[in-house]
Amino acid sequence: MSQFSEIHLQKETLRVETFSDGVFCIAVTLLSIEIGVELHGDVTNKALTHALLAKWPIYLAYVISFVNVLLAWIGHHSLFKMFSRADNGIIITNGLLLMLIALVPFPTKTLGEFLLTDGLKTATIFYTGYFVLISLGFRLLWFAASRKKENLTHDVTAIQIKLTTRNENVGLICNTIIFAFAFFNPWLALALSFVMWVYWVLFA
Amino acid sequence: MSQFSEIHLQKETLRVETFSDGVFCIAVTLLSIEIGVELHGDVTNKALTHALLAKWPIYLAYVISFVNVLLAWIGHHSLFKMFSRADNGIIITNGLLLMLIALVPFPTKTLGEFLLTDGLKTATIFYTGYFVLISLGFRLLWFAASRKKENLTHDVTAIQIKLTTRNENVGLICNTIIFAFAFFNPWLALALSFVMWVYWVLFA
Amino acid sequence: MSQFSEIHLQKETLRVETFSDGVFCIAVTLLSIEIGVELHGDVTNKALTHALLAKWPIYLAYVISFVNVLLAWIGHHSLFKMFSRADNGIIITNGLLLMLIALVPFPTKTLGEFLLTDGLKTATIFYTGYFVLISLGFRLLWFAASRKKENLTHDVTAIQIKLTTRNENVGLICNTIIFAFAFFNPWLALALSFVMWVYWVLFA
Amino acid sequence: MSQFSEIHLQKETLRVETFSDGVFCIAVTLLSIEIGVELHGDVTNKALTHALLAKWPIYLAYVISFVNVLLAWIGHHSLFKMFSRADNGIIITNGLLLMLIALVPFPTKTLGEFLLTDGLKTATIFYTGYFVLISLGFRLLWFAASRKKENLTHDVTAIQIKLTTRNENVGLICNTIIFAFAFFNPWLALALSFVMWVYWVLFA
Repeated sequence: MSQFSEIHLQKETLRVETFSDGVFCIAVTLLSIEIGVELHGDVTNKALTHALLAKWPIYLAYVISFVNVLLAWIGHHSLFKMFSRADNGIIITNGLLLMLIALVPFPTKTLGEFLLTDGLKTATIFYTGYFVLISLGFRLLWFAASRKKENLTHDVTAIQIKLTTRNENVGLICNTIIFAFAFFNPWLALALSFVMWVYWVLFA
Repeated sequence: MSQFSEIHLQKETLRVETFSDGVFCIAVTLLSIEIGVELHGDVTNKALTHALLAKWPIYLAYVISFVNVLLAWIGHHSLFKMFSRADNGIIITNGLLLMLIALVPFPTKTLGEFLLTDGLKTATIFYTGYFVLISLGFRLLWFAASRKKENLTHDVTAIQIKLTTRNENVGLICNTIIFAFAFFNPWLALALSFVMWVYWVLFA
Repeated sequence: MSQFSEIHLQKETLRVETFSDGVFCIAVTLLSIEIGVELHGDVTNKALTHALLAKWPIYLAYVISFVNVLLAWIGHHSLFKMFSRADNGIIITNGLLLMLIALVPFPTKTLGEFLLTDGLKTATIFYTGYFVLISLGFRLLWFAASRKKENLTHDVTAIQIKLTTRNENVGLICNTIIFAFAFFNPWLALALSFVMWVYWVLFA
Repeated sequence: MSQFSEIHLQKETLRVETFSDGVFCIAVTLLSIEIGVELHGDVTNKALTHALLAKWPIYLAYVISFVNVLLAWIGHHSLFKMFSRADNGIIITNGLLLMLIALVPFPTKTLGEFLLTDGLKTATIFYTGYFVLISLGFRLLWFAASRKKENLTHDVTAIQIKLTTRNENVGLICNTIIFAFAFFNPWLALALSFVMWVYWVLFA
């Protein structure tokens, strides 16, 4: 392959990546929409303070999802750095992943709204299950990319490929375990999510 | 034309393309807005599960539109790759197309909300008719671009032009057929959309 | 000034321009939000068809604003092409202009909702007055840029400057006339907007 | 370090910066969402005029937040111009900052809605306190960046570092003072915000 066409193909990857970045960026910013406070009855400083504080599950869900999408964005970027081109398999699996990312505000909203109700378990199962789907999306994207040697840049080593496969598997397994915990103890599941981040940030 | 001015004009095309990409990207992410679940009466895990599952037409409409807009984005990109500049005709027809793309959340929402009601036929006619308009927008954009030789880059061959014209026509005809089916059998029309994607992804 | 620093300054302009493009792009796509249809009472195909058709003032307002923002974007781009750097004056007046552009969905919504009510005149005055403000914003941006020679690139001629000043003045005057008409005949004012576009597209 | 790898690292910074720009851009444009007017009872030109005018606190909150986020964007840009790479510390603190920026529509909405009610003090405390958090976010980002020499480009002088530290500290202190005033006199606190901008624009 001539050098020119390689540059041309990398430009193609860049375009897919820019579009994906846009979806990540908008999804993460849209999380804040609909967060607001309403007061029924007398409006006083005290009532407004209480109303603002009572919304803490919404804030918590916002923070959890913001960090999750940000980590997903970083992970997405690490993958794309290795891609030399975007073939059909990559475009389709990437599209699937973006479809999930763009809908993150939905499970987030559901978690925030039902965290303090008797629907807590269902909300947590839905939320953690949704991130199992996202891990699966990443796994598929990596599968589509790594199955053909031409999809990866020349400087990607066999060790890097192995490591990435392991990383994606670990992510999927961790999210599945958290999902399983949600059926028994929702709060523990959410706490485990938090532990996973700290690990992620410190070691990856 | 000097080489410098060609680069300059291509920069212009890039700018129009970047703006268009932004509209595609935001439109596709905005599809998720307003997707949410509300519970009236007792909040229980069971009630929330049912409420979440009962929203499946909304999810289906989301998936259909996400894929449609993504395919439209890929199609848009293939066209712009051939343009060497953006003259008035291209800018106007492209603006028209973007106006339609940005409004896709509206027919999507309508389809999702009325899929299981007695308004199914109208909702499907509206939805499939909307995508006929989008195909028409693409056809017009390609007409505006291909009628002048200077609008296309030097390496675009006559065969490529012919092929693109055929592709745009086929897209328009397919969408019109699906639209026609919606008047008789809405579910069949939606199923045909799905078949068209598979064809699209496998052969184009 | 060394060539290096000129390139560096142009990169600065580019960044402001990219940010502005983003605001234009998001504002234009957000116009579609909240466009939707609700049915109270029996849901039938006929009722949904009527409900969809009855929303035409909303669609009209959407189309008018989409075209207006798109034309504003093209105008913004023509100005920035002439800027060699973004000094404080340009940044402030550009910020002011973006503040107005980002809020266009508000007068648009108001126009669409009240077009067929007895609030038509107020809605049209608000809408057309809002675009007088936007013209004013453009005029200020151009004033801030053109008052210093260093703000413009070397290849901008005195004739170009004169022409741009005239263009911005004409835009401001046209919008003010349309605004004035809105007090007497709202529909005529909206029709004049349309005539102005056609002129704009054909001659500029 | 080879020249190639430095260019490579700067490209990394650019990506983080582009993503951040996107969040700033979307957050600022989303401020306009939900701004609208509703009429209950008879719709007349007079009633609509009154309804539009009565919303002035919403407009005021919009303007204040728009300017604040724009200034924050400019400040963010000045910082990133000095960064030669984005290490973990920068990525984490920058993510924290973006999480706050993306949620600015929430305190803005709260301020606008409760400005003319008996909840004014709480709304102002919330709003000004939120911008203390944002200043803190900036301070942390600068701390994470400046503690390692490799994080900054070669041409950043010791004086520039000192000046930036001072700037960030002054910003934090000013916002804290405004926040303190909100407890006693909310209107004075908002007026002080305004004074701070003018200072910012004229001297920085």
